[in-house]
Order: sequence, then C-alpha cells, then structure tokens
Amino acid sequence: MTGTLTIAGLGPGNEALVTPEVSAALASATDILGYTPYVARVVPRPGLKLHPSDNREELRRATEALRLASEGHDVVVVSSGDPGVFAMASAVFEALEAAPQWRDLPIRVLPGITAMLAAAARIGAPLGHDFCAINLSDNLKPWATIEKRLRLAAEADFAIAIYNPRSASRPDGFARALEILKDAGCGGRLAIFARAISAPDEKIETVSLQDARPEMADMKTLVIVGNSATRRVGRWIYAPRQAR
Amino acid sequence: MTGTLTIAGLGPGNEALVTPEVSAALASATDILGYTPYVARVVPRPGLKLHPSDNREELRRATEALRLASEGHDVVVVSSGDPGVFAMASAVFEALEAAPQWRDLPIRVLPGITAMLAAAARIGAPLGHDFCAINLSDNLKPWATIEKRLRLAAEADFAIAIYNPRSASRPDGFARALEILKDAGCGGRLAIFARAISAPDEKIETVSLQDARPEMADMKTLVIVGNSATRRVGRWIYAPRQAR
Repeated sequence: MTGTLTIAGLGPGNEALVTPEVSAALASATDILGYTPYVARVVPRPGLKLHPSDNREELRRATEALRLASEGHDVVVVSSGDPGVFAMASAVFEALEAAPQWRDLPIRVLPGITAMLAAAARIGAPLGHDFCAINLSDNLKPWATIEKRLRLAAEADFAIAIYNPRSASRPDGFARALEILKDAGCGGRLAIFARAISAPDEKIETVSLQDARPEMADMKTLVIVGNSATRRVGRWIYAPRQAR
Repeated sequence: MTGTLTIAGLGPGNEALVTPEVSAALASATDILGYTPYVARVVPRPGLKLHPSDNREELRRATEALRLASEGHDVVVVSSGDPGVFAMASAVFEALEAAPQWRDLPIRVLPGITAMLAAAARIGAPLGHDFCAINLSDNLKPWATIEKRLRLAAEADFAIAIYNPRSASRPDGFARALEILKDAGCGGRLAIFARAISAPDEKIETVSLQDARPEMADMKTLVIVGNSATRRVGRWIYAPRQAR
C-alpha cells in the first residue's frame, strides 16, 4: 500500500498561526521529518514517529521522506514558516527528480505563514508595496549572485526581505550586504530587524539602514529593508500604496 | 471606552487556510469591514455588524474602521490573502497618518496565507529560490515604474509573482508585461496561471512564457513567472535551491 507525503509549513512559531489544514495533516501523520527544532514543535502521541535531523541535511531528509511514503507511511515533512520559501519543498522536488520510481506518490504542499509576513504584520505593513525576498545564504549560490540581486533590488526600489542574514558559519555576508545597499543609495531607508517573531523571545527594532550594525542580525532574524517611501506613523512602519 | 482595530487576512479562500488567530478575532468582533466578497466569507451572528463596501474604497473604509474603533467597537478589517501584501493594512496606516487623534488606538495586524504562497504550494515550489512580488495595477503608481521593475526583476533572475495582472478597467497592462519579459529574454521561462486557488472553481495551468496569452489572466488570477532554472518534475513545478 502506498502512503502519502505532505510538506507542511508550521508558521513562525506561535501555534495560533498554524493553519487548520496543517494541524489536520499532523494529526493523521505516522511519521514527521524535519530540522530538530521544528520537529520539536509537534506534540508526540502514540503511533507517531518523530525523525528529527540536522540542518544542511535537507536532501537526505527529503529522500528518506519519499522512501517512507513509498513504503506506506503517512509522512509529514515540517518546515518553519512556509515550506515553499527557502525551505523543504524545493529539496523534496529535487529528491523526486533524482528518483523517478517515486514520481507518482501522492504529494501535497501545505502553505504556512512565512517569516516576512509575520514580521511585517508585527511592525505594520512594510510589504504593502512591491517587494522581493532574498536568501542571504551562499551555501547553494555564488555570493556574486546575491550582490547582483541586492543592487538590482535597490535600483528597482523594492522593499527587500532578507532571509538567513547571518549565522555562525557565515558571519560576514550580512555586513557586505549592508555596504552594498548603502553604496546603492539606500542609507536613508528604514531597516527592520525582526527576531523570533511570535515566539516568547520575540524582539523587533527599526533603524536607518546607515545606522544598522551586522551584529543586530543572527540566524533567527528576518530583516526587512523598506523602499524609498517606507515611513513611520506612530509606532508603526508601512509602505504607502502610492509610488512615483 | 476605546475599542480595537484588527486588520486580518482570510487567506486565499478555503477556510482550512484561515489561521486560528484570525478566527478568534472574527469571533470576538462587533464590526467587520471590507470589500464585499471578503465580508461575505464571514459567518453572520447576533451582535456582529457587517459593513461591506466596494473596492477602490480602501481609504474611506480604513477611516471608517478607525472611527468605529475610537467609538468603542471591536473592529476587524478583512482582506483576502495577507492584509499586508497589496491589501488593507497600508490603507489603514495611511488613514492613521492623516488622523493623529487616533494614533494611540490598539491596532493589530494578523497575517494570512497570501495568494502567491497558496498558488506556489498547489503547483510545487516555484518560490523556493529568491523572488519578487509586483502589483500590476497602475491605479496608484505610474506604468513606467512597473515596466522598470519587471526589467530589473528579469535581470536579477528572480521568480516573479504578479498580483492583479488584469481587470476589466486595465485590460492591456498584462499584455505589455508579457512583451517586456519576452524582450528581457524570459520567453523560455515557465509561467504559472493560478486562478481562484483553494476555491471550488480553482484552475491552474503552466505554459512557456512565450506561449502565454493575455486572456489567460483575469482579476482572480495570480501569475508566477519562474526563474531561469525553474523546471518540471512530473506534474510539479519547482525552483531548485542551487543557483549559478
């Protein structure tokens, strides 16, 4: 008997942001796979096997999930946020491409509240006008590609959501990104540092990009750089709908 | 007594995609404001007043919501998708900027599953690598700005989510957008037309951009143009994590 594979987004952390569709998938799963801290968000119960794994293990995890589903398990691969935004869904389809024997497995992708939407809502509406999302990790793409995209995003006057700005293994990229954006004339834009949004240790601060310091970001931080019109009203930050 | 103002995202249409946080806000509201088809998604009950209004009424609706909250009502302004992405949150902060007397009202923005995440999940993972979101409506920005952003997005090799591609009052912009993207060398990219995602009349089709016709989009359609590496695996479309 064939099982099923569901790739589900748990949202940014707060259980009130998990969709009913995802909760139902977790409730009927036999196996949960994912990065250890995300699997830890799933409540254990009899009949449910948890398979936590390290990050940078995405492709191996995806292949294991396909194999378990092919053996009849009802497998859920969990991501934080949305599984389709810099998360597990692409890894599963990469694994599927390498394994034609599993091409007909019943697969579903269930969306979730990705970090930039949760962070934006907390501070106002900085993504209310055209925007882009850039993953600052250069594990899987050349740094030159990231630089080029930052420059073009600044020229396009997009608000810029920066995922994975900085980690212990990549301490320097974010400092270079800030320099590139300042060079591109974005020094006067607002930069929002949103850490652990919706979790108990949530912290959010906004500064002028020219005053931003690399240490303000870590691997739990999502950074949103406003567009040239993004502004404050009271304690809120928002992008006006109008543009020149 | 002061009321409250909540700006909430209802997701793309299916109730299983409404977060528990939003459901709770709807359950305790006294007044719901929004574009008529979105207000129609809220179940009526005694003690709840529904205030449907036309689109293009965003600023007037936002001001009315603030006024009702200031008079002690618990007001929820509903948007489809996420309220912070081309929706009501920016309009509320614009209205707040014009009305300093309401600056201290308790306001919350509750995120939702925006159309591009729901559409992406349905077809695979076309937003699994860097991407941008562009609102094709030129009601509030010059068409030249839209053109410039499309060209820069193509040059950056972003996947491009196009919101509001085409409507009865703007029949021609999307055809021009397709020409711009073809001129920019994107003719071979995959273009996903996702209509009424998660609703009963959902329809999704994928073609090469060079084969896309303007009539494939209407005001209920979200278009995602893949990046240069976006590809098919079986019935799925995804952006690989790796880039050159």
